[in-house]
Amino acid sequence: MKKVVIAVDSFKGTMSSIEVCTFIETGFKSILPELETVKVPIADGGEGTVDAFLAALGGEKIKVRVKDPLFREIESFYGILPDQKTAVIEMAAASGRPLVEGEKNPCLTSTYGTGELIIDALNRGCNKLIIGIGGSATNDGGIGMAAALGVKFLDEAGNSISLNGEGLAQLRRIDTSEKDTRIDHCQVLVACDVDNPLYGENGAAYIFAPQKGADQAMVEDLDQNLQNYAAVLHKDLGLSVQEIPGTGAAGGLGAGLVAFTPAELKPGIEIILDAVEFSAVIADADMIITGEGKIDGQSLRGKVPIGIADRAKDSGVPVIAIVGDVGEGLEAIYQRGITAVFSTNRVAVPFTEARLRAKEDLVATSESIARLLKIAGW
Amino acid sequence: MKKVVIAVDSFKGTMSSIEVCTFIETGFKSILPELETVKVPIADGGEGTVDAFLAALGGEKIKVRVKDPLFREIESFYGILPDQKTAVIEMAAASGRPLVEGEKNPCLTSTYGTGELIIDALNRGCNKLIIGIGGSATNDGGIGMAAALGVKFLDEAGNSISLNGEGLAQLRRIDTSEKDTRIDHCQVLVACDVDNPLYGENGAAYIFAPQKGADQAMVEDLDQNLQNYAAVLHKDLGLSVQEIPGTGAAGGLGAGLVAFTPAELKPGIEIILDAVEFSAVIADADMIITGEGKIDGQSLRGKVPIGIADRAKDSGVPVIAIVGDVGEGLEAIYQRGITAVFSTNRVAVPFTEARLRAKEDLVATSESIARLLKIAGW
Repeated sequence: MKKVVIAVDSFKGTMSSIEVCTFIETGFKSILPELETVKVPIADGGEGTVDAFLAALGGEKIKVRVKDPLFREIESFYGILPDQKTAVIEMAAASGRPLVEGEKNPCLTSTYGTGELIIDALNRGCNKLIIGIGGSATNDGGIGMAAALGVKFLDEAGNSISLNGEGLAQLRRIDTSEKDTRIDHCQVLVACDVDNPLYGENGAAYIFAPQKGADQAMVEDLDQNLQNYAAVLHKDLGLSVQEIPGTGAAGGLGAGLVAFTPAELKPGIEIILDAVEFSAVIADADMIITGEGKIDGQSLRGKVPIGIADRAKDSGVPVIAIVGDVGEGLEAIYQRGITAVFSTNRVAVPFTEARLRAKEDLVATSESIARLLKIAGW
Repeated sequence: MKKVVIAVDSFKGTMSSIEVCTFIETGFKSILPELETVKVPIADGGEGTVDAFLAALGGEKIKVRVKDPLFREIESFYGILPDQKTAVIEMAAASGRPLVEGEKNPCLTSTYGTGELIIDALNRGCNKLIIGIGGSATNDGGIGMAAALGVKFLDEAGNSISLNGEGLAQLRRIDTSEKDTRIDHCQVLVACDVDNPLYGENGAAYIFAPQKGADQAMVEDLDQNLQNYAAVLHKDLGLSVQEIPGTGAAGGLGAGLVAFTPAELKPGIEIILDAVEFSAVIADADMIITGEGKIDGQSLRGKVPIGIADRAKDSGVPVIAIVGDVGEGLEAIYQRGITAVFSTNRVAVPFTEARLRAKEDLVATSESIARLLKIAGW
């Protein structure tokens, strides 16, 4: 019996990673019903990260009431894996952009709710945290999150500042004496696919604040505030966060996690592949199927199919990609260890139409591949 | 060493059958250089029929000066296969629409030049004629062709009528006494993919004359004239051509060929597959690749991929289709004996853009299929 491992990114704008993996499995099994399949939905750290981990590894979804980015109480969630020790948290579930739709303002939004999710996980005995930080509505440098853990952020007069991007302007002193020290004994893996510094022209404010609702003047203020934050972190904690790639991720939540937890920033795909023990999963596989919405030989860095191909390299297991669009530079893709690339497009129509039939086309494409493999003796 | 037979229709509007077969071969051989390939370009009876036969079987292209549809002298051509006895003639090369571009008028155009091609082939000793009749500019019932063979078409006063669609109104008598009888000893295979009757609402004039430049009044006149033609054929030769499917093909050239030659009307694909001895070619093949510009489960009749699948049925050789677009009704396609269908679309763009990259996409798609087969042990 042949075994296929299906580890495909989401098709942005059409299907989540879980859906993509499931539809490919459906197509294959309709032709090769005896086939053994293992699905590894890929979490990118944004919305859907918890679901992806739970789908890949099992576990439980925990519901918690926390503060949203504007400090209103909402029902949020995170996951606990079957080991009962590992929590999977997506910051988007507490501090994400959809929660402030229509009232986006990165000066006012806070990561406080994300900190509350962490506390809940600690209360349930978790000592390993996997934190996805994509999709943030915030630019607070993670001080909301840290405040929930007990860190105090104080102004000139020794009063607590506002726990948001605006508040950072007043920050003069950081007091960690009342921080919940349980976090220091945890392994904290942060799924982070960008390497932006905290501030400056490639920093959190300049690069990401506009999509969170900032105009040019706000961007400049927020960047100033993050610089002030970095200075106080240096003065009080002896940290130089600016030099660490990724601290500018999620409005500086990357910096906050590095400063106040034992965080390791890693590409999301590395974390999930480690978590599922990918090398062991593929050891006896006959084929790996990966893919994404669009593959392009010119921008392979950080791409799921390439991450998968890298992991598969030593195993000798062939990797084929099923993608929405195939961009330029196919040769570069093949050189990186992908053996064949199939597009799901089955009619010549623009994306606006193609997306409406994406699921059927994905199943049909997977089915055709399976049919060809069957001819060839599978 | 594996053997693949490539028998693909043209991709209408982008590539001829010869090109399609060649690009697929290129894609496969780039991955499987040892692969044995046999290309069978499919002639549909229209433009490119001679080239397709010569590409599949070898032979020589003969240049001849003949009359174009408006009786101007042009250089035309036909093919003689290596047996030196079989001529392949496409009527489009002498009487086709491109020859009257900008001055289309099915009342005035004639198939006379097609008859001249036939005469030339007889003069060179051919006794088997394969005649493709697609792409005609004419609606003369084939009287031009027959006149070139020596048949006389006379009016009330016993004078020759004009050898065109208009002239048929005056036809009162047909005199075959001076016909070149060599034609009667030939095998005449006419590649004809339609089964329209000579006249009436599904006849040559109503269905095909508009694309040859006829307005509604012309269509009605032309249809009347074809009815008159049928009546005289019945009176003088005892023929009931109206009842024979396909006599309305090529402006009634189907009828002319049936009336004045020992013509057999057959689907173009049957003729070419017989000519290349397809059953023998595929007997030791591992796979057959077929395809066309668009496949659609709702309109499979007369389609090349289905014709190929029918021929392959008893051989047990799997048939895969590489197509531009995959329409609705995939299940029906699979039920007819096609094992897998791949689209060449690799980006979500409309046909106007897709056609510009059709060749690269076809090669890349073929390459991906070959890569998958290689993984599976080819």
